[in-house]
This record gives sequence, structure tokens and C-alpha cells, in this order.
Amino acid sequence: MSTIIAGALRLCSFHRRLLHQRMSANVGLVPTASLSDSGQISEEVKKLLSLKSQLGIDPKPPKVKGKGNSEKSKESKKPPGEDGPKKFVLKTAKGTRDFAPEQMAIREGVFNKIIACFKRHGAVTIDTPVFELKETLTGKYGEDSKLIYDLADQGGELLSLRYDLTVPFARYLAMNKVSNIKRYHIAKVYRRDNPAMNRGRFREFYQCDFDIAGQYDPMLPDVECINIVVEILSSLNMDFVVKAIQLVSFDDDGVFAACGVPDHKFRPICSAVDKLDKTPWPEVRKEMVEEKGLDPSAADKIWEYVQLSGGTELLEKLLQDESLTSQKKAAEGLEDIKLLLQYCEALGISNRVSFTLSLARGLDYYTGVIYEAVLTGSQEDAVASSDDEGSVGVGSIAGGGRYDELVGMFDGKGRKVPCVGISIGIERLFSIMEAKAAESGQKLRTTETEVYVIAAQKGMVEERLKLCKTLWDADIKTEQSYKKNTKMLNEFQYCEQTGIPLAIIIGQSEIEAGIVKLKVMSSREE
Amino acid sequence: MSTIIAGALRLCSFHRRLLHQRMSANVGLVPTASLSDSGQISEEVKKLLSLKSQLGIDPKPPKVKGKGNSEKSKESKKPPGEDGPKKFVLKTAKGTRDFAPEQMAIREGVFNKIIACFKRHGAVTIDTPVFELKETLTGKYGEDSKLIYDLADQGGELLSLRYDLTVPFARYLAMNKVSNIKRYHIAKVYRRDNPAMNRGRFREFYQCDFDIAGQYDPMLPDVECINIVVEILSSLNMDFVVKAIQLVSFDDDGVFAACGVPDHKFRPICSAVDKLDKTPWPEVRKEMVEEKGLDPSAADKIWEYVQLSGGTELLEKLLQDESLTSQKKAAEGLEDIKLLLQYCEALGISNRVSFTLSLARGLDYYTGVIYEAVLTGSQEDAVASSDDEGSVGVGSIAGGGRYDELVGMFDGKGRKVPCVGISIGIERLFSIMEAKAAESGQKLRTTETEVYVIAAQKGMVEERLKLCKTLWDADIKTEQSYKKNTKMLNEFQYCEQTGIPLAIIIGQSEIEAGIVKLKVMSSREE
Repeated sequence: MSTIIAGALRLCSFHRRLLHQRMSANVGLVPTASLSDSGQISEEVKKLLSLKSQLGIDPKPPKVKGKGNSEKSKESKKPPGEDGPKKFVLKTAKGTRDFAPEQMAIREGVFNKIIACFKRHGAVTIDTPVFELKETLTGKYGEDSKLIYDLADQGGELLSLRYDLTVPFARYLAMNKVSNIKRYHIAKVYRRDNPAMNRGRFREFYQCDFDIAGQYDPMLPDVECINIVVEILSSLNMDFVVKAIQLVSFDDDGVFAACGVPDHKFRPICSAVDKLDKTPWPEVRKEMVEEKGLDPSAADKIWEYVQLSGGTELLEKLLQDESLTSQKKAAEGLEDIKLLLQYCEALGISNRVSFTLSLARGLDYYTGVIYEAVLTGSQEDAVASSDDEGSVGVGSIAGGGRYDELVGMFDGKGRKVPCVGISIGIERLFSIMEAKAAESGQKLRTTETEVYVIAAQKGMVEERLKLCKTLWDADIKTEQSYKKNTKMLNEFQYCEQTGIPLAIIIGQSEIEAGIVKLKVMSSREE
Repeated sequence: MSTIIAGALRLCSFHRRLLHQRMSANVGLVPTASLSDSGQISEEVKKLLSLKSQLGIDPKPPKVKGKGNSEKSKESKKPPGEDGPKKFVLKTAKGTRDFAPEQMAIREGVFNKIIACFKRHGAVTIDTPVFELKETLTGKYGEDSKLIYDLADQGGELLSLRYDLTVPFARYLAMNKVSNIKRYHIAKVYRRDNPAMNRGRFREFYQCDFDIAGQYDPMLPDVECINIVVEILSSLNMDFVVKAIQLVSFDDDGVFAACGVPDHKFRPICSAVDKLDKTPWPEVRKEMVEEKGLDPSAADKIWEYVQLSGGTELLEKLLQDESLTSQKKAAEGLEDIKLLLQYCEALGISNRVSFTLSLARGLDYYTGVIYEAVLTGSQEDAVASSDDEGSVGVGSIAGGGRYDELVGMFDGKGRKVPCVGISIGIERLFSIMEAKAAESGQKLRTTETEVYVIAAQKGMVEERLKLCKTLWDADIKTEQSYKKNTKMLNEFQYCEQTGIPLAIIIGQSEIEAGIVKLKVMSSREE
């Protein structure tokens, strides 16, 4: 139920009063003389109608005119109450869904394991509002900003639904002048994306973030993030590897030069490289060589770097590669990776971790190594087949990275707070766990009820209530029927259907003897 | 962290492609000949600019013009990026707030107790999206509809943030053709209300609902709801009473007649009675008698009924009152109350429950007895002093009631599902628990860390990591510093500040001997 009754009444009258005041105030503003001006009269009529509709006495709610054009959808737009008797479109908003008790039971299980891991690592949790000032989100998501949900301007601030938990986290740190914290945050985020619900892409979905903020020594917070991904995915029996991706920005540090790309071709080649996230290499190579006139050997060298993926052995090889190590940023990047692999070794998780040099740019706010956990083996196939987008990102189940500049963007003095964090792809985990549960064929319990109280005769409501109360007070999870007269057979069936393990039967004779009969549902023992 | 990296990249490229397609399609629609028409040209320029801005290549984001007038607030409206270097207003949206780790720790404690109670009573849980189709919420909240947050029309459906959890629950039942369920739902709801944050009234706040849907026997689900309120509030050491309020609608069943109000005065007297939620009786009586010409004795009889509050004794008295029992609805109402009190007696909670006859109308959707738990004693004072609205509803800490018609409003065939439920006033509970925690002066732990790993010498990072991993694998909540070189004194201080009970110290000699030193922080024992 939804409302504290008296509270609701209080608000009602309070608002009624407020609106009356506002109404008078507005009307009072119109000088009588100007009422002869018909334009102004119609203006005032509009105001009054709008105030009336706020008071709920307008039979037709104001129509909201569509002005967006970013998405010419086929959805029906029926302003409510327009054509006589109300016809409800009985659905949830596009790209969103309800969760039934069975799904919630699976979610709860996954959440519990994840939260247990976060707590094991000493994380606190915080919460932020579901919407932020629009300007808080502006300039953080590049091109994806168009996917942000805005709230209607109903007077007051311009607001948007959060797009992720990272930007609100950075805003929180700057606003509260927090310079170090290790926190997790599990909450829903919103993206006005093209939904593909049967493929697991929604407009409302959970994010599950763990971040470490603070000025610490290189790679120590980073490796804890990786370790947490490993612990969580292992606890859920996933097959996976974590890729540490060193963003070797080709144009910045001259790795292009190392590959033999002439200076004046940096930009066109860079834009070709950018296409690798959705275009196969042969096509990109063709563009580089045939359209942009790059020497084929230079193109092949680029491809070599892009493909690299491995552990300590690969690292040793790259540290010998002078064309890389002579570039300051690349050299630093390799040193970071070296330390990271060393720490992974100490944690005994290096079998789970590989690194790559990547050209991916990721989100605007990443500044260091980024991480991605991908499923391997049969789980990869399961997720791959549920995805509609080519070969990149398939099986991705967790991701994150370092973003040392984001908090500074919110601070008046540009005070920076270095951050690193990971986001568990919890919606994908849910899908996998749901599929597993369905496969296993086992009936999933949605309650934890231990005992069901049954009357042997009709009625006996008060006796049943008394017994339930005794059990509840003893912290025993107990249910009984909300019917006055019950049939024992139906009651037993209910227990079997819902998996309640024990039934307590009371009848007149039991009550007189001061005893109860206990039945174990699985063995039918009494 | 926020994004599964590859997923983000995938979406990027996908959307880039989509927008390019859209751009071409739109431009392609313009017949070349008509470009001479300057109106159409400027139209197309607008379209292109809008598409450009979606692509993120427009230096100035489109300004969103305010058109609402329902709330002339003093908030600054600065469209972002307008005046050169970005100046962030570093705040959360009006009426909302962040929750720091200390607050979250208290919330978690309260949530855990409440959820434990719901589970003890065999409830499942469901979840619904944070926004609904606008029309789903239309016509459910009467005058309060104006407090609903709408989402901006960005193309597609018209959406609103949920105002409570009850209407989405009813929509869920109708949509999924669920005819019986006992569920709880704890989630945030949104009201564009005048916030009074220091008095606990927010625009984003948690609701915590327990509802029983299904065709059952009278008062059995109802009394379980009351019992749950009693269990939860008792477990949190609150002093309270639950009032069962029988809505004796004066105009419907002729109780007015019983009081001696003449037929033609029903409506004016009813409107006077309505004012009782915020106006003291003497004033209302004056209106009745002096303005509306009611016989003073009739007015006093109304006041008698309104003031009544009690248990079985009062009920017995009213059952003798023929002016009441001769009215069909009133008689039925008294029978319901009788059964309810009887069941409360069986549950041993009648000391917590009283009933009143009320003129309150509550929310539009209530159809039967409504419930309200109010704080008594010192807790009432604590909440009362934090409230700004007169004397009604002060100390209200839970509420609910029966709403048998709501689900039918969503069903094409008007199929009804009777429902009863309660909502725990969890934000008020949080406030009280926070005040208690502050009063007690005890330091609140925000983590559950059991062990802190400390190195006796500088460095030893990998040894610390190894030890931590061993502890984590044994499910021991463990932390260590993210600094390479640490000072033991600082480390001990950190343990004391954060309440970590145990420290494990390793040094070169310990490692060689294959042992660790364990220090109990409270006693300093080693």
C-alpha cells in the first residue's frame, strides 16, 4: 500500500490551499484595463485553464505535443481521457519490464553473493537520487548523451534520469568533498536506447558498481577491482577471462610512427582504426592501403599490435620492442601492465587475466587501463546468441577502468580525485542464471515459508491465528489460508506447489489435548 | 564503474550508424523543387541542426525553454554550456538527497528487519519500472495528480515517474492476470511536492508496501496487514497504536440523518465536515450552525461520532445505537470492525489496536476500512516537532487499507481483484533511527571489515596481497592499505577510526617463520 493516510490528507489540503493562493495571485496580476486586449484575455484564459487542470477539475487533461524527432516510433500516442471511456494500453513503458517473484528470487540470490563480496572487501555503500540536474550529466557521455532521459519541464529545475552510476558518484565526491572512499552502488539506470528486450538490452536496467576513489599507489586499487570481478564471477560459476586493456592512443604517443605511418596520415589512419569495433580487419586494411595510400607493411604492423593479447610472456617481448618503449606514454603503459600482472600473480588470479593494447576509446572519462571480463566456453555462446551486434563485445560480463579526471570536472577548483572502478554486468548474469534455473527444471521457491498451518475442521480461524502468532513470534516463517473454511486436501496441495516443507494440523481433539500434528510434506510422515 | 566497455562501444557505433541512416532519410524526403520555398528551407535547416546536435557536433546544446508555470521557484535556470566555461551548480535536484555510508548503514538495518518480517509471513517480492505510461497513472490520485513527475516528450510514449507502488501493483496484477498474491515491494517513488527536507518531506522517497490480493474471507487478510505493522514497529522499539478507521461516508448511508441533519443540508454540512482535517472543531461547528443554519444539537451529535475511538467496549455500545445500526452500510461497517477486533484478540495485538469512525475520504481508491499507525509518547513528540502541518497526521508511521476496485480499473473486462495492503512510513522510521543513533553517541560502523592487514616494514605489497587473498577466500572480511609503503601507527589509527576489531601484522621475520601476528584492537593484546 502506498500512502500514510493522514499524511496524504495533509498534503491534499495543503496543496489545495497553495493552489488557491497561486490562482488568486496570478489573476491579480492582470490589470483590468488590459482585459480589452483580446490576445491578453486568451492568454489569461489559458493560464486559468492550466490552473484548473492542476486542480483536477478540467475534464480534458492538457495534450502534450510531441516535439522530439529523434525516434520516429510506431508507438501509439493517445493522450488519456480523450475519447470518452478510458481505454488503457495495459503495458509497461517501452524497453522496461516487470519482475515476477520467480525472477526476483534469482535476482536476490545474485545480489546477495555480489554484496557479500563487496562487504568482504570492506566497501561501504551510498545512494544518489534517480535524477540529477541536467547539466550534471552534460558533456560526460559524448555521442551517447542523446540517450539520456529528460524530465518534462514542469517549472523548476531541468532534470534528467541518471545514465550510469559513475557520474553521480563523481558529483557526490565533489559535492561532499570526499577524497577517498571505497563504495558499491547497485541501482537502476536509464538509457533511451533502441531496446532489444529478447536480447537483454533494456531502457531501465541495474548497474552494479564498485569504485575506489583516492590518491593511492599505482595499480593497487586497480588490481583489487580485477580481483573482485574474479571473485564474483567465480562464485557464480562463470567461465571467463578478464582483459586489461591498455589504451594506446595511437595519435597521442606516436605508436603510429613506430608502425611507419607518416605524420600527415595520422588522422585518416586513426579514423580507419576507429572502425575496427564493427568492421572486419580486411576491410579496414583495404581502406588504409587503397583509399588512404598507407604502406601495406605499416598497416600490417598496426594489425599486429591490435591483435596482441597475453600475459607476462607477451609483456617481456613488448618491453624489448624499442619502437614501443621509445614512446613515453607507451613505455609508461607497459610499466603499469607489468605491475598489474605482478600483483595478479600475488593474488593467484593471473590465469584469469590477460592484457591487450587497444585502440578503443571507451567513454569520454576513462584515463588509464580499462578492464573487461568476457565469458568463455559455452556461456559465451549462450550470451553471443542472445546478442544482435556482430562480434565485438559479445560475452562481456563486467567492465570498468580508471577515470582520474571526472571528479575534477565537478570541482570548482578542479581538485582531482583519482578513481578506478568496475561495473558488474548484472543483467547478463541474471539472464544466465535464469536460463540455468529453467534448464535445471527444478521448481524455484519464491518464498521461504517453513510451516503451513492447517485446520482439520471447518472454521477454527482464531485457533489458527493463535498458532501462527506463536510461530511468528518464534521467528518461524509461517503461513495459513485467508479462507475461513478450508479443505485439507487443497491445503496440502498448496504446500506441495509452493514447496513448503512442513504442515501443522490442528483439530478440536488436538486443541483439547494441547498438542499439534506435524506433517513432513516430502515424506508424508506425521 | 558504469559501463561494460565493449557494450558501450557497440552501442556507440550502432547509434552512429542509425543516426546517419536517419539523417539521409530525412534529407531525402525533401523534393529538390520545393527548396525554393524559404519556409521549407528553414524547416530543413532546423531538422539538420537538430540531427547535428544529436550527433554531438553542435557547439551549443539546444536550449530547453521553460513553459511550466505551476511552480514559480527561485531556482536558477542556466542551460548548460551557455556562458563559456562550464559552471556547475553542484547540488542534487530539489527535494532529493544523497545518502552517505552512515545513513545507508542505518537504512540497511531497518530494511533487513522489515524484509525479515515480510518473509516470515510468506510474502514474495516483485519489481516494476520506475516510470509508467502516463495514462496508467491518470485518474488515480485525484487532486494530487498534479504532483506527478512527467518525462519529457523525446519521441515515443508519454511517461511519468511512479507516484506510489500501489497503482503499478494494480497494473501488474491486471496485466499479468494475477488473481492472488501476497507481495512486498520496497522502492522509491516520486512526488513533485513542495519539499520540506528538514522536516522529512522529500520529492524522492522510499515506500515499503505489503499487499494481499485475492478473493478471501472478510478481515483475514486485513488483520494480517495490521499484525505486520505491529510486528515491524515492535521490532524497531516504537511506541505506537494502530487505528482502524471505518470510513462512514456520511452522505451515503444516512448517518447524517441519524444525527438529525435535514436532507437538503447534507451537501453543505458534508463540505464543512471535510474541513475537519485542518480546521479545529469550534470553527467548523460555527460554520455549520451560524452559516449553514444547522441545529446545534445535530452538530454536536456529528462531533460525538467523529471523536469516538476505542476497542470492543465502544463497539458494543455502537452496536446498541439504533440510529447507526438502522443504516445498512454503517451496520455492515460495524460488523467488519467486530470481526477485526476479534481476530486482533486472537493474535494478542488488541492492546495495540483501536478503531474510529471517520469522515476522511483518503485516496480515491480506498474502498473499505483504512489503517493508520501513529506514534505515541516521546516518539510522537519527536516526529511532531519535525512536522509543519498542524495537528492532523502527526506521528503517522504506517498506513493503508482496502482497495477492491483499483485492479478492475486496469482490466479490459473490469475483472476485480480485491486488495488490502499497508505501507510502512520508512522515511520517518529512518529519521527516528538516525536520531537515536546520533543521541546514543556510539560510533556507527559503515563497513563490516573484520581484519586489517598491516606490514611491519615498508613495501611487502605482494606479501600483503597474498595474505588478504587467503583471508578473502576463507570469507573473512579483510582490508589493507592501497599504499605501497605504510606506517604502522597510521594503520592502527585507521583500524580504531573505522572500528576494525583485528589487525594482522606481517614482517620479514614472520614470513620467514611462516607465522603472522594478530592484534586485538580493543584490548591491544597481541
